[in-house]
Amino acid sequence: MTEAPEYPVEERLHGDLPLTDADAAAASIDADATLLTSGFGSVGYPKAIPLALAEDNRDLSLTLVSSGKVGEEIDVDLMAADAVDRRMSYQSSEVARELTARREVAFSDRNASSLGDDVQYGGVVDPDVAVVEAVAVGEGWFVPSTSLGQVPAFVDAADRLYVELNRHQPLALQSLHDVYRPEAPPNRGPIPLAGPGDRIGDRHVSFDPEKLAGVVETDSADATYTFRDPTDDDLAIAANLRNFLRGEMARSSVFDEALTLQFGVGSLGNALMGELADLDVGDRDLIYFGELVQDGLLDLLDDGRLTAASATSLALTDEGQQRLFEHAERYAEDVVLRPADVSNHPGLIDRFGVVAVNSAVEVDIYGNVNSTHVAGERMLNGVGGSADFNRNALVTVCALPSTLNGGEISRIVPMSFHVDHTEHDVDVFVTEQGVADVRGRSPVERAELIVENCAHPSFAPELRAYLDDVCEREHHIPHDVERAAEWFE
Amino acid sequence: MTEAPEYPVEERLHGDLPLTDADAAAASIDADATLLTSGFGSVGYPKAIPLALAEDNRDLSLTLVSSGKVGEEIDVDLMAADAVDRRMSYQSSEVARELTARREVAFSDRNASSLGDDVQYGGVVDPDVAVVEAVAVGEGWFVPSTSLGQVPAFVDAADRLYVELNRHQPLALQSLHDVYRPEAPPNRGPIPLAGPGDRIGDRHVSFDPEKLAGVVETDSADATYTFRDPTDDDLAIAANLRNFLRGEMARSSVFDEALTLQFGVGSLGNALMGELADLDVGDRDLIYFGELVQDGLLDLLDDGRLTAASATSLALTDEGQQRLFEHAERYAEDVVLRPADVSNHPGLIDRFGVVAVNSAVEVDIYGNVNSTHVAGERMLNGVGGSADFNRNALVTVCALPSTLNGGEISRIVPMSFHVDHTEHDVDVFVTEQGVADVRGRSPVERAELIVENCAHPSFAPELRAYLDDVCEREHHIPHDVERAAEWFE
Repeated sequence: MTEAPEYPVEERLHGDLPLTDADAAAASIDADATLLTSGFGSVGYPKAIPLALAEDNRDLSLTLVSSGKVGEEIDVDLMAADAVDRRMSYQSSEVARELTARREVAFSDRNASSLGDDVQYGGVVDPDVAVVEAVAVGEGWFVPSTSLGQVPAFVDAADRLYVELNRHQPLALQSLHDVYRPEAPPNRGPIPLAGPGDRIGDRHVSFDPEKLAGVVETDSADATYTFRDPTDDDLAIAANLRNFLRGEMARSSVFDEALTLQFGVGSLGNALMGELADLDVGDRDLIYFGELVQDGLLDLLDDGRLTAASATSLALTDEGQQRLFEHAERYAEDVVLRPADVSNHPGLIDRFGVVAVNSAVEVDIYGNVNSTHVAGERMLNGVGGSADFNRNALVTVCALPSTLNGGEISRIVPMSFHVDHTEHDVDVFVTEQGVADVRGRSPVERAELIVENCAHPSFAPELRAYLDDVCEREHHIPHDVERAAEWFE
Repeated sequence: MTEAPEYPVEERLHGDLPLTDADAAAASIDADATLLTSGFGSVGYPKAIPLALAEDNRDLSLTLVSSGKVGEEIDVDLMAADAVDRRMSYQSSEVARELTARREVAFSDRNASSLGDDVQYGGVVDPDVAVVEAVAVGEGWFVPSTSLGQVPAFVDAADRLYVELNRHQPLALQSLHDVYRPEAPPNRGPIPLAGPGDRIGDRHVSFDPEKLAGVVETDSADATYTFRDPTDDDLAIAANLRNFLRGEMARSSVFDEALTLQFGVGSLGNALMGELADLDVGDRDLIYFGELVQDGLLDLLDDGRLTAASATSLALTDEGQQRLFEHAERYAEDVVLRPADVSNHPGLIDRFGVVAVNSAVEVDIYGNVNSTHVAGERMLNGVGGSADFNRNALVTVCALPSTLNGGEISRIVPMSFHVDHTEHDVDVFVTEQGVADVRGRSPVERAELIVENCAHPSFAPELRAYLDDVCEREHHIPHDVERAAEWFE
């Protein structure tokens, strides 16, 4: 193995590399191969080889593994080409949803933090080829682009490696990365990270040079996120959340030094990040230890209000990407990108005392949370890292609008028919209506608080009537399953 | 604070201690106090003060927090005395179940690993008094008895402390303990434990001597477990599990050095531990990293087949306790008792590459696991540590008989109406019928494997018919909720 690069890496290509093109790379991949790709938060995924596979004339039956959201080259073009038989662990396009619903693609959904181990040691797939995007590559190392995800584990697990060298992504991204590789169990040491903003690894991913099957040069942009402007509901949720956070800072000295937050992906999460500007944290450090850096954090970073931001992906809009790309070194003073088995690690979320704020498709009155399946049946995207944070945070908040479709449908229901986060995990529910702090409450007490404080007035009476009626039953968590099912008709 | 004791501790009482009796202690506790008690796995709980509270003439409305199963003095006598209004996080008696079902006691169920943080930092209760059992006590320290659970966190969180010095429990128990206290977030360091059998802490729990309200001397046995003899089904499950474990050892080099297992509580878990004697692990270390040491492990320890056993409780029968008590120092060469925030720590379960084996009340065809509520409504005991291991293990096995009540009821159902472990967490299902390895499988594929390999022949055709019918629906996880509900009628 050659030596690691000297920083800063100033050239894109280093040493004697097997340059090739996407068609040749695609042709070398077995029709039924298991592909592990980079990509998380809709950025940093490979683009050319998936497109070439989409146009391949063979009858492909690929197994496709990515640790987070990828762009349209994979999630639309490759999926629509009927080339993928099996997929994990996140999807986000209409075509992917349809194929999953028709069960033409066997979709398996895992938690973001553990997918690397699942793939490398856990036997969930038999990996063949890793396909990753990079901004620079040498003999035995590459510098990833806009996300890390489970790339280091995927590269270690796969027999062969293709690197897409994307000249559209700036070399300056190297300054953000901190690539730490946990050892293999059972002799895995603790992750030696002292704080959310610290660095313990390299700016590059190392690999066995024997694995490198080819380097494909590309020049194309990520299919970035678009966020809607914050709605009135978003702003009301943000205000309720700020009130709750103020109360937490007053409640416990555990927050005296720092308030460390995580926010889930999406327009609401992005809006909540932005609205933190109005939260007075006093002398405390305000820290972000999450999975994604979204646009909402950039103003806080520019204003010096955020001490550190740790994530595995720059899930930004086009505008946000441009803003970050132009000043990557400056942002790197506070922003660190880590592999997802570090950014989302249960032990680190625990150690840093994170307050986690994630959204949901719906919650039921007893506090069970569904973040993946509409009406319990129709897969949307995937569980992602929400369970990593919801389970391991010191305080877990589920923030969501009380309704959807312009108020037609209640997101608070009598019973969720798909549960991603159990009644044991969530501490506080926040909607535009108010806050239900259910810590230490029994299921029926939780139901009373959630209906009273969080449900929309259009639905609260009906939920209340349901609760009153089922409480005639002498059980810890009384149900009327048929009546609960009617909510979805 | 006085100095820590010198080991071995040879006297029960050290220094100038406020000796008192149980009635006086009970009388000093406010009628609406929040009590944090020791006790886990039915052992090591306080006995005299709870009994005195049960006989208290005042109208008590206590909040009672224990991290695991406690004995009848609490779970029967104190509960039946109508003295407890609110309880977390585990219960196991008929009277406790009835009070919970009638919602005369507000029962809140949390994961065992996080309850200490929940109580100390997370705001789930406002702690007043800790009541713990010890085998020796001094000014600022005590040596716990047969379990640790979340005792160190409880003692730190409470304003006052009562110690029950139980002369029935041998002083030699000190040799088993390893009390490590994680720092407070956000500056909590990683737990510096190199391997499951290592020691990083003290044999005693430290406390602020100002907190010590009294020491009550007692002499009474734990209300230990009783296990039934292994049934034919237990033995068939054990044989199927051994086959699976053999396959895992062949599958991945991650198990080349050691096979590290965890087993859940109960007669089945105890039987599975015992039946490990027939598993040939070759040159590997066989290691137990779990929550409870049950009788099934003692033979393996005696035969030198187990390199190390780490747990938070000696959940033994009377006979097992006697066996261990007589040779505590010898067992301490291999057995380590840790606080539950170490024994069940997500980061350690991850680092040691644990294969977790837990049972369930029922599983549904899609792989959701219910371990707490009969028919989704009736609370049995509590989630305990099962979620800690199911979520964080490298490979997660759910092992259970396919039926209960002599074959009358299927434990595999179309839909679980209470979910403690989601479809994202369990890798393999094992019943006496066979093994369903669902890793990397979609929900419908999982259903096919579970029905085919694990369901009892008396129920498999009906489950298969349900699956075939719902698969007419074009969804990722198709349901027919009403029909699924009929299974519970």
